[in-house]
Amino acid sequence: MANIVHSQSNNPNEKVVLVIHGGAGTILKKNMSPEKEEAYTAKLEEALRAGYNKLNSGSSSIEAVQAAINIMEDSPLFNAGKGAVYTNAETQEMDASIMNGADKQAGAVGGVSTIKNPIDAAVAVMNQSEHVMLTGQGAEAFAEKAGVELVDPSYFKSDVRMRQLKRVQDKEKAILDHDGDRGEVNSSEEEFNIDFIEDRKFGTVGAVALDKNGNLAAGTSTGGMTNKRYNRVGDSPIIGAGTYADNQCCGVSCTGHGEYFIRNVVAYDVCALMNYKQLSTAEAAAEAIEKQTALGGSGGLIALDAEGNVAMPFNTAGMYRGYITESGEIFIGIYGD
Amino acid sequence: MANIVHSQSNNPNEKVVLVIHGGAGTILKKNMSPEKEEAYTAKLEEALRAGYNKLNSGSSSIEAVQAAINIMEDSPLFNAGKGAVYTNAETQEMDASIMNGADKQAGAVGGVSTIKNPIDAAVAVMNQSEHVMLTGQGAEAFAEKAGVELVDPSYFKSDVRMRQLKRVQDKEKAILDHDGDRGEVNSSEEEFNIDFIEDRKFGTVGAVALDKNGNLAAGTSTGGMTNKRYNRVGDSPIIGAGTYADNQCCGVSCTGHGEYFIRNVVAYDVCALMNYKQLSTAEAAAEAIEKQTALGGSGGLIALDAEGNVAMPFNTAGMYRGYITESGEIFIGIYGD
Repeated sequence: MANIVHSQSNNPNEKVVLVIHGGAGTILKKNMSPEKEEAYTAKLEEALRAGYNKLNSGSSSIEAVQAAINIMEDSPLFNAGKGAVYTNAETQEMDASIMNGADKQAGAVGGVSTIKNPIDAAVAVMNQSEHVMLTGQGAEAFAEKAGVELVDPSYFKSDVRMRQLKRVQDKEKAILDHDGDRGEVNSSEEEFNIDFIEDRKFGTVGAVALDKNGNLAAGTSTGGMTNKRYNRVGDSPIIGAGTYADNQCCGVSCTGHGEYFIRNVVAYDVCALMNYKQLSTAEAAAEAIEKQTALGGSGGLIALDAEGNVAMPFNTAGMYRGYITESGEIFIGIYGD
Repeated sequence: MANIVHSQSNNPNEKVVLVIHGGAGTILKKNMSPEKEEAYTAKLEEALRAGYNKLNSGSSSIEAVQAAINIMEDSPLFNAGKGAVYTNAETQEMDASIMNGADKQAGAVGGVSTIKNPIDAAVAVMNQSEHVMLTGQGAEAFAEKAGVELVDPSYFKSDVRMRQLKRVQDKEKAILDHDGDRGEVNSSEEEFNIDFIEDRKFGTVGAVALDKNGNLAAGTSTGGMTNKRYNRVGDSPIIGAGTYADNQCCGVSCTGHGEYFIRNVVAYDVCALMNYKQLSTAEAAAEAIEKQTALGGSGGLIALDAEGNVAMPFNTAGMYRGYITESGEIFIGIYGD
């Protein structure tokens, strides 16, 4: 369960790399103010430097992923932690997961409302329980015992997110009024009509790191979908769908329309394509996103292998993304080509 | 979302096959009375015939999987539905999932306590929502709106299961007394000590069907682990881990120590091994279980492809299992070789 920090190095050059994302979606330059672009760029850089400092000082890839994700969870810019979107009941229900490539240990929490940094709870589940996935109040009770920081739900209150919720609910109402007397279950279908998807954004955050010992780790944290109901769980807390890491192939974190990522088991699929089809990380990541496009799912992923190769494909207009290499060189991208 | 029942046949001989399991574990002939063996055999046969009748009358593979699982959920012999084990809080928290191989649509519920047949709720999520996974009270609220049968939690009361809970809790207490003043989180680790695993059994049920149109479907339903806490979710409701179906490879349902099945993404791995490594269904299923053995996870799986090939590997002493072919020929097995 413990992270392998002091084992003999599999990484003779002690190369460290960190890759992050802050969500994919209809992110277009024409809709972005210079101030907003600068704010996102600065926060992504801060997250990269936080994780890089961990890696450079010899910390594990798990700790680097956690540090980078914590920065994004603490920012209102992303749909995770502090910036988590509202559910239909005007609450937050957050999901997170982490996986350690050295031993394929994993931890995840689904539907938590009182945990300041859900990725910390996922790490606690991995390191301090025999389980992989805990949900709801049980996950919160476990996190509290494990010493993870809890907050009053009012910590997540946000005027911006509340306005997003109202906008989505207004759209939903307009569709329902137009469609007339549809049944209640059908109305929930409409709620998730594709028209809403773009407005809801996919601000999920994630990180994948390679540490000096050659160990990979991947993590993902999200607030899910604006206006979600019925304790819906997306791909972010699901090992295989939203997150996967195995030193034998790569680490992956996904962002996008979660249901499609679950159905194609996207994060693990990148690994399977590498292990079984002998594809490179870039080829495997591209093929996994092509399969998403074919199924109708929009989003993207970041992938990093034990040699430090990075892939960041997406089929949306943009994806907040970046990486930092062993030399401290930083790349940050927001839009597509 | 609707099952493809009336599409042109991909199955010129209209071959139908149904495979089921009722859980893997330390199932030894020396511990089994003739009466108990007869009861399990009779119930497995009843489940096979229920699903086979659906397939023979032209129903979809989804309907056949549901019919077979319903029989096992309604029996106290298996850890699903009526026979679901108790949580630490003396409640039931059941999980189920289903996937349609024709279009890779899927549905799942996690941690439900008031649904008579959790597989029915999973089917409702697949057919009547845009989501794949709903959990807890949200899943129950959705199921009620969708017309799924709810029951009072007292429906699941069972003296046998309560005695199992007390036995597991007594063992836990003995270990804690022996270990002295360990922290509370560590005590939860002990709770899931490997010593308990065998006593808790893995009575998860599952089914995979091939219908006259050549479409595959797979489903899984479980009560999870005796004495579980913290709203733990195992592999059964996780698409990719406990359940997967894709006409291009096969349908799979798993049973065993769920955490390990999540970490190796076992159900989807069988598909990946077939699609990317060109293995047969039997070879892929065997390799997936070998990988479980290597990781330390005990359990088994059933797999069925669109040509009607069946595989039922397990690394435990036994697995309740069976299949029925187009001619009505039935195989039922309980023990290993």
